Amino acid sequence: MADPLTQLVRLLARLPGVGEKTATRLAFHLLRAPATYAEELSQAILDLKRRLIYCSSCCHLTEQDPCAYCTDPRRDGTQVCVVALPQDLMAIERTGSYRGRYHVLHGVLSPLDGVGPDDLRVQPLLQRLGQGEIQEVILATSPSVEGDATALYLARLIKPLQIRVTRIASGVPIGGELEYADGVTLNRAMESRREL
Amino acid sequence: MADPLTQLVRLLARLPGVGEKTATRLAFHLLRAPATYAEELSQAILDLKRRLIYCSSCCHLTEQDPCAYCTDPRRDGTQVCVVALPQDLMAIERTGSYRGRYHVLHGVLSPLDGVGPDDLRVQPLLQRLGQGEIQEVILATSPSVEGDATALYLARLIKPLQIRVTRIASGVPIGGELEYADGVTLNRAMESRREL
Repeated sequence: MADPLTQLVRLLARLPGVGEKTATRLAFHLLRAPATYAEELSQAILDLKRRLIYCSSCCHLTEQDPCAYCTDPRRDGTQVCVVALPQDLMAIERTGSYRGRYHVLHGVLSPLDGVGPDDLRVQPLLQRLGQGEIQEVILATSPSVEGDATALYLARLIKPLQIRVTRIASGVPIGGELEYADGVTLNRAMESRREL
Repeated sequence: MADPLTQLVRLLARLPGVGEKTATRLAFHLLRAPATYAEELSQAILDLKRRLIYCSSCCHLTEQDPCAYCTDPRRDGTQVCVVALPQDLMAIERTGSYRGRYHVLHGVLSPLDGVGPDDLRVQPLLQRLGQGEIQEVILATSPSVEGDATALYLARLIKPLQIRVTRIASGVPIGGELEYADGVTLNRAMESRREL
């Protein structure tokens, strides 16, 4: 077996965006860091796999089923925000401005990658909509080809249920320079222009 | 206690060069990765702290004292390459061209940071030199103000022992563009010019 340092560098270098140099730097940082930090980190990596499950209602990652977002009585149960991935939910949650519920699809439609509707958590969403409380579905998949296609697909499924379906806006990001915005974004921003 | 994902993101974000976004990306990568990988990584972080000690001869990190570099009979025992940090030793070792022994100072002289000669592993080096086998000391600290000062300090200590003292060359890096080299490097490259 390799020595502990080589072994750790080898494993860290398999993380995305981490090459051998970064892995070495991280390993030496861990070596100098307090032992409690290394132990906490080691435990957290194990816990991640052992303690997280999927919420049977919204399909987000959780320790308890149903999850805190689904059971929080202060959240608006008439709105559900549909996202592709748990990290998208977390990004929206970080803004602190959305107070409805969520639904995580765990992917987007991508025929080229062999991802069809049955590979996404669409059925659990339809079941929730069938319970009658939800009045608006906000489709918050990314404004990419796959994200748009997934939103369109869901909109067609949900509209017949007499539930309001909305799509998050896309355009030039706030603080972004028009000069550096890509053409597709600029086009979308022009098409989606609003009266002032 | 925070949920496992938040906890892991919080701990990963304390690593150098890792912000909250990168930490989140790494955490989700670990979540999708095979459980064996997460377990290996968790164990490697623990092992790093529990199994590594310092070699009593060269002061490098090792599992066994003395370390493999000090005991390898195929390495040239008449040369010792002095580096500031274990990662510097590893960088030289990766080149595969140096076959002598090493000595790790664990820092460089830095009066402003309160690092004096007594804070470095200078005494163990002098003890090794006193044993009579070493004929050349290669000072391979970085060509920075502190690295140069450390090299000069050691050279003055070692020369009276009738041992050859050399300093690694510095100049424009191989493959580097002269145009983009900083002035200090260019000056050094000019001063250290050699006859062809």
